[in-house]
Amino acid sequence: MGAVKTKRMPRAVREQQMLDAAVRTFGRRGYMAASMDEIAELAGVSKPLVYLYLNSKEDLFTACIRREAAALTEAVRAGVRREAPADSQLWEGLGAFFTHTAQNPDGWAVLHLQARTHGEPFASEVAAMRAEIVAFVTQLILAAAREAHRDPDLPESEVAGLAEALVGAAEALADWANATPGVTAREAAATLMNFSWSGLGNLMAGRPWSPPAGAQPVAAHEVSG
Amino acid sequence: MGAVKTKRMPRAVREQQMLDAAVRTFGRRGYMAASMDEIAELAGVSKPLVYLYLNSKEDLFTACIRREAAALTEAVRAGVRREAPADSQLWEGLGAFFTHTAQNPDGWAVLHLQARTHGEPFASEVAAMRAEIVAFVTQLILAAAREAHRDPDLPESEVAGLAEALVGAAEALADWANATPGVTAREAAATLMNFSWSGLGNLMAGRPWSPPAGAQPVAAHEVSG
Repeated sequence: MGAVKTKRMPRAVREQQMLDAAVRTFGRRGYMAASMDEIAELAGVSKPLVYLYLNSKEDLFTACIRREAAALTEAVRAGVRREAPADSQLWEGLGAFFTHTAQNPDGWAVLHLQARTHGEPFASEVAAMRAEIVAFVTQLILAAAREAHRDPDLPESEVAGLAEALVGAAEALADWANATPGVTAREAAATLMNFSWSGLGNLMAGRPWSPPAGAQPVAAHEVSG
Repeated sequence: MGAVKTKRMPRAVREQQMLDAAVRTFGRRGYMAASMDEIAELAGVSKPLVYLYLNSKEDLFTACIRREAAALTEAVRAGVRREAPADSQLWEGLGAFFTHTAQNPDGWAVLHLQARTHGEPFASEVAAMRAEIVAFVTQLILAAAREAHRDPDLPESEVAGLAEALVGAAEALADWANATPGVTAREAAATLMNFSWSGLGNLMAGRPWSPPAGAQPVAAHEVSG
């Protein structure tokens, strides 16, 4: 009777169970070390059924990346009220981001660590998600510049760099928060707002930081090769 | 005669040539896809000689990580005058960091992308380097707090988070600068100082950012599992 129940489970539900098991295994063991045997056992299904539904380890990993990337961007999008002031939007977006990464540490490990370094098409899947988040943050910073009634001609390269810095800081803080007992999503978001927002605010208001007198010069010529 | 010259080349010099070729190949192709044939050819030596000197692909990769990590931390350390004010030290350290990562994009790719996701002992090699840099930045931020003659009891967890945020932002900006034509090390460093320093300065002076009235609440309970 148990077997009959199992067989009647809809394919979509069964697939989600496989993906749950796969995200957990890939996130904790890494892509290379994860075995299809372990994933099937954790999902409570046979290994041939995993291959029947999801074709290969590569396709299973791609499906994990897509599901986790969609869940993360949806969580951030849902957490932000687009009509709110820019700093509220950033605060809400960061809060939603850190809440989601804390609640889904294995999914975050798949996206941030595993997906980026095992070649195509994995890297391009996660790069597309990251580009979407950077574009969203860039728009927030541009909106803040407009709200400040200041330089609407702030070079896009400068804003792109700020958005990259903020996303990179958020990624590092999510890793840190997940590895550090007692750190809440709220604390991580507040740390990043403290770190960044006043600085951005000063920049928008035309008060950029400038090197103090006596500081060593930094090469201004382009050095990337 | 060329052959005689080649044979007389000291082992240390030959090893550095092999490591140069290996860093370039690992950085551009990734650890898995890089072949010992390609590395030997690029170094202008036979494959057996690479194995004789560096034992295995794993040991060669470890040697690359160690050399590139030591070069990066040494570049940052050498770029900072420890007696300077905290913001000058941070500016000089960031300038040295972005100059080094721009001049050594393959070494940076080995450290930031490749080394972290191919299991032990690679991950722990690069984690040790990163911890050293985070500790250095933490000290800078603590020094800034002392200079500001404010709260010397600023919780270490808060400072640790700020240092993580700054290092994460610098990592993301190095990737971005290396992938974006026309971005100089000076611009990357100035972007990060603009982004972070005024915010840190306000925080140190007891003016933290706080959520605006009407912002959505962010969960204050710990959610990491």
